[in-house]
Amino acid sequence: MTGNDNLLGSVPGFRFSAVECGIRYQGRLDYCLIAADAPCNAAGMFTKNRLFAAPVRLCRERTGNKIRAILINATNANACTGDEGYANAAALTADMAEKLGCGPEEILMCSTGIIGHQLPVDRMKASHPSLASKLSREAGALIPRAIMTTDTVPKSASRSFTTSRGRFTVAGTVKGSGMIAPDMATMLAFIITDAPVSKNDLDGVFRNAVNRTFNRITIDGDMSTNDTALLLSPDSDRPLSEKDDLGSFAKALEETLYDLAVMLVSDGEGATKLVTVRVIGAQNDADAAKAARAVAQSLLVKTAFFGNDPNWGRIGAAAGYSGAALDEKRLSIYYGDVPLLIRGVPQKQDQKALAPILAGREFTVTVDIGLGNAESTMLTTDISYEYVKINAEYTT
Amino acid sequence: MTGNDNLLGSVPGFRFSAVECGIRYQGRLDYCLIAADAPCNAAGMFTKNRLFAAPVRLCRERTGNKIRAILINATNANACTGDEGYANAAALTADMAEKLGCGPEEILMCSTGIIGHQLPVDRMKASHPSLASKLSREAGALIPRAIMTTDTVPKSASRSFTTSRGRFTVAGTVKGSGMIAPDMATMLAFIITDAPVSKNDLDGVFRNAVNRTFNRITIDGDMSTNDTALLLSPDSDRPLSEKDDLGSFAKALEETLYDLAVMLVSDGEGATKLVTVRVIGAQNDADAAKAARAVAQSLLVKTAFFGNDPNWGRIGAAAGYSGAALDEKRLSIYYGDVPLLIRGVPQKQDQKALAPILAGREFTVTVDIGLGNAESTMLTTDISYEYVKINAEYTT
Repeated sequence: MTGNDNLLGSVPGFRFSAVECGIRYQGRLDYCLIAADAPCNAAGMFTKNRLFAAPVRLCRERTGNKIRAILINATNANACTGDEGYANAAALTADMAEKLGCGPEEILMCSTGIIGHQLPVDRMKASHPSLASKLSREAGALIPRAIMTTDTVPKSASRSFTTSRGRFTVAGTVKGSGMIAPDMATMLAFIITDAPVSKNDLDGVFRNAVNRTFNRITIDGDMSTNDTALLLSPDSDRPLSEKDDLGSFAKALEETLYDLAVMLVSDGEGATKLVTVRVIGAQNDADAAKAARAVAQSLLVKTAFFGNDPNWGRIGAAAGYSGAALDEKRLSIYYGDVPLLIRGVPQKQDQKALAPILAGREFTVTVDIGLGNAESTMLTTDISYEYVKINAEYTT
Repeated sequence: MTGNDNLLGSVPGFRFSAVECGIRYQGRLDYCLIAADAPCNAAGMFTKNRLFAAPVRLCRERTGNKIRAILINATNANACTGDEGYANAAALTADMAEKLGCGPEEILMCSTGIIGHQLPVDRMKASHPSLASKLSREAGALIPRAIMTTDTVPKSASRSFTTSRGRFTVAGTVKGSGMIAPDMATMLAFIITDAPVSKNDLDGVFRNAVNRTFNRITIDGDMSTNDTALLLSPDSDRPLSEKDDLGSFAKALEETLYDLAVMLVSDGEGATKLVTVRVIGAQNDADAAKAARAVAQSLLVKTAFFGNDPNWGRIGAAAGYSGAALDEKRLSIYYGDVPLLIRGVPQKQDQKALAPILAGREFTVTVDIGLGNAESTMLTTDISYEYVKINAEYTT
């Protein structure tokens, strides 16, 4: 499950290409194309930031269409670029449409990188003949690397699944997570499948899977101007039916997105630990989600993770200010299986049991609110010196 | 305006004492008393954390009473200590009431420090004769130091003001800010005045002043289990009347709290910069406050402050995800007087003008949303290596 395995190329019906366009830096893949052999249904999930980039606007306008290709550039976000930025994205997709022999409205575009700079449109257009002519399944291996900004490793994942209509595959790649790097924002995720799913089903299944995976991770709590996740599935007169077939697709999709989410958060800047924050016993789903997010985003909790400190007081305090209903006398907190607080009573700490958990690369913190049955989980990381260093030392 | 100036001792009608009780550490002042010569009206503002400490419960129950004294201990928060913790606080105030010759319900108590440990009640009671007998105005100079946890300097401020009834003084001290230190949480603030103000007026004026000062600062966005601000004013048959007298008190109070808030945020752990985030042009007050808070709390913005990076993209993105109404084409961002974005258009950066602003210890970032007339201001700091170090290296 690394970017070198060409998991994208294993999905029939899609081809790929990537070039060193020199958009901001020389000598790196920074512009790529995912093209479908036949028109696809597309589902998209986008940043909720009111300051959203031109390509986000373009994707929002077009995901209702049948889609043939996605153009992706790294190192320039095309954000805070006004009407000119939008016109540039439209011109690039129109030019590529001509090369691919489809309509401009059938091409999506995503960008990630520095904010406030116009794309070098002429240089990018000059790459289009190469991008269009070099399409191959083999080049699927290049996409995870071409979309990276400060990611340290390319990320891809896939699942195959069996239906009454045969065996299908879902594969995806992702870059960045949260706004993790100086001006190099954005989570972008691209998922493809050869399973034919109706537009309506695709939207529902994708929204649900994203909410249970990508929307349950946090590194720094910031939300970018460009966050986008896209899913393409071939359009068909006979899409997968609702019952078992769609369920197996939904399961494979969610597992793929979960793998990508774990890779994302594990590659968070300067992160040394991957921590699952599990809230149980909340009065309702909203409370569970609020408490899990507050704990997972607390700077004090995250620095304690880095310091190998089983600081249940900070965890309890974060749950306490989350807005979730909470009563000290019902609250329990565990690191792994080791209880630190049981129904409001601090426990004598079993250092022998705690030490290996705290020193580990991955562990789970469980917060049992003790008021109901609702649960929620977040994946988070620690905050290390390296995080501050990476984010402070960049100068525009 | 430092803790050594005995600003508290300048307020007629109050006396003070502080001792080295050895609650958690030896050789430091950690237990102190603020006593009023006559019964006072009290106003209190408390943490909104649902996990709140025993002394917070006690203060909430008693601030409607006439108050004679406040007992304060540092190094142990008496939080997550259950019924025993509350009983301990009640017992300590009852014992002190006996020494002072008043009712137990006339004494408030505040605690700050480690979570999940019971107070050493016997040792603390053993200090009571000394605390009660050593009361003096001179000892006002000790209070700002006795309440410190990881604060690097004692903090106090005062204002005198003239009314038709004569000249009065308001003075206060504060410790900690947000949850800034490992298990040593909490902002505690104690304000006293010789101006007689009715309970009703005191509540309103204090709430307003706290909301415009202490509630507009952020260091790490965490909220402690013990945050408490208390204001005492002598009870009187003839309190200050509503018009000019009360206004001059309100002004002096707010100025005092503002001074204390600036001291707090300037003493934030590892902070090297004090930044005023000013949002103007918001559609309404709620939007202005949301945008200012999001920018001031953004980890990416704060690391950029530390790195001397005029990263207006991160500032715009934080305002964008704050929930405030916002339109790229109306948005402008300034560092000091230097525009970086004007109505959505990135400006050529005037490095010569920017460099001294960024390198300074204090500056203002202005975000003009351009949609209305509402404004809001937050004080914040940068996030430095030192912050992570302080918060990671502690082990319970």
